[in-house]
Amino acid sequence: MAEEPLSATVGIIAGSGVLPFAAVDSMRKRGIKFFLYPIRGFCDPERVKAFPHHWVALGQVGRLTRLLRAEGCRDVVFIGGLVRPALSDIRIDFGTLRVIPALAAAFRGGDDHLLSGVSRLFEQQGFRIVGVQDVAPELLMPEGSITRTVAGAESLADIATGRALMHALSPFDVGQAVVVIDGHVIGIEGIEGTDGLLARIAQLRADGRVRAKPGRGVLVKAPKTRQDLRFDLPTFGPKTVEGVAAAGLAGIGIVAGHALIADADRVVATANRQGLFVTGLPL
Amino acid sequence: MAEEPLSATVGIIAGSGVLPFAAVDSMRKRGIKFFLYPIRGFCDPERVKAFPHHWVALGQVGRLTRLLRAEGCRDVVFIGGLVRPALSDIRIDFGTLRVIPALAAAFRGGDDHLLSGVSRLFEQQGFRIVGVQDVAPELLMPEGSITRTVAGAESLADIATGRALMHALSPFDVGQAVVVIDGHVIGIEGIEGTDGLLARIAQLRADGRVRAKPGRGVLVKAPKTRQDLRFDLPTFGPKTVEGVAAAGLAGIGIVAGHALIADADRVVATANRQGLFVTGLPL
Repeated sequence: MAEEPLSATVGIIAGSGVLPFAAVDSMRKRGIKFFLYPIRGFCDPERVKAFPHHWVALGQVGRLTRLLRAEGCRDVVFIGGLVRPALSDIRIDFGTLRVIPALAAAFRGGDDHLLSGVSRLFEQQGFRIVGVQDVAPELLMPEGSITRTVAGAESLADIATGRALMHALSPFDVGQAVVVIDGHVIGIEGIEGTDGLLARIAQLRADGRVRAKPGRGVLVKAPKTRQDLRFDLPTFGPKTVEGVAAAGLAGIGIVAGHALIADADRVVATANRQGLFVTGLPL
Repeated sequence: MAEEPLSATVGIIAGSGVLPFAAVDSMRKRGIKFFLYPIRGFCDPERVKAFPHHWVALGQVGRLTRLLRAEGCRDVVFIGGLVRPALSDIRIDFGTLRVIPALAAAFRGGDDHLLSGVSRLFEQQGFRIVGVQDVAPELLMPEGSITRTVAGAESLADIATGRALMHALSPFDVGQAVVVIDGHVIGIEGIEGTDGLLARIAQLRADGRVRAKPGRGVLVKAPKTRQDLRFDLPTFGPKTVEGVAAAGLAGIGIVAGHALIADADRVVATANRQGLFVTGLPL
């Protein structure tokens, strides 16, 4: 949680998906003022119309910081999907030019490095980066099962294997998900993402390469060990649950308080319909 | 190298692919007597006709040990591909029945566990398991570049990242390959295998998710840290090189002396035509 109270208005830098809108819905209900800065090409242009907003393009740091200041947003939240941009997709403006050396340094590292680079950049300009958990804590995965089904002993053992593997991988800035079935590590997430990983497991099952009976095995998601929790929390939603069902797994274990649920009602309804568990793991 | 000289005849338990035939060609040239035990459904029935052989089915341990003894094979080599069998695919014979508890124990672990279980099983019956390197050492990857192109400084850095990652993964009995581009871990092999990993990278590139210029990044292959080198050495061949070319990488780094090359002439010719490096790394 941010130590100081939030600024009167919070700037929401919004990428793709439903999470930016879930966050602002939650903020509106709880009386937190916000202003949206949807990123062109990522944020949904239809849904953004219902909220006060200024469009920005990736890399327009000068325009963004000017518009944040114009609306009194000292505190800034990054939320939603952003595929790692190629440098050629970034628009250059005068504000960007000033910070190019910092940006270039940020791009040389992995995603963690990129994000902490961007964060430093904003902090140098007098902003404070806060996390989704600071403005919309009910989007965070709680501890324990949120479904009717709970994880059995074999699933708990698979979850433990998956967590140990992700811990081992954490220095490498890759993979926030792994699939383990009956103690065997079946797939590890690279840049293809969790949906890609699950589609691969479904395909391997269709090809007879995964021969465990359906309803066994788990998807485990965890934050990277040294992840900056102010952005880039692992996220899951109904699509993840559908992917887990298609992959024939028993359920999902996900670190509580360090992952965001998009559309929690549909997550629970979909999992219950499929007989899957979704459980929040203690950190 | 096996400490004692090889038995007069060596039994070759042959799975899929070209390696069993490369091994027996090499043995024939060097005057080592052998007898082939092709595994039904895995070993190529056409190619096997040119050699003395007895077909066996997976799990027919009784038949196999009887036929090995009949041909005087004390030393046994396992070579070629075997997809991990479902228990229902295993034919039961009387020899198998005797060893079922040991087999069941072998199947509960990962592949390493399975293989060492099978190995113990044969050793209890008085056989000695030797490695391909003991009967056909020229199939092993040598140290240094086998191609005209050599790995540049950036590729060497990517190779170091890949090796460190595989070292971290080694307790988990998964993945003998990783793709690293410009310091970023892009994909990690699960049970889909190296060809599946490379196809995924090619697809991610086609989808614009890998945006590094073609000709950057490496495939790194290494044995698991605690791998039994008598079987299950990482293997690569022309198809791997073609997969690396399709994925737009610069080359392949593979631990020397701990990996087998199938069809080395075609590997080198294909890599040279594509301008890729293939380099054997010091252990």
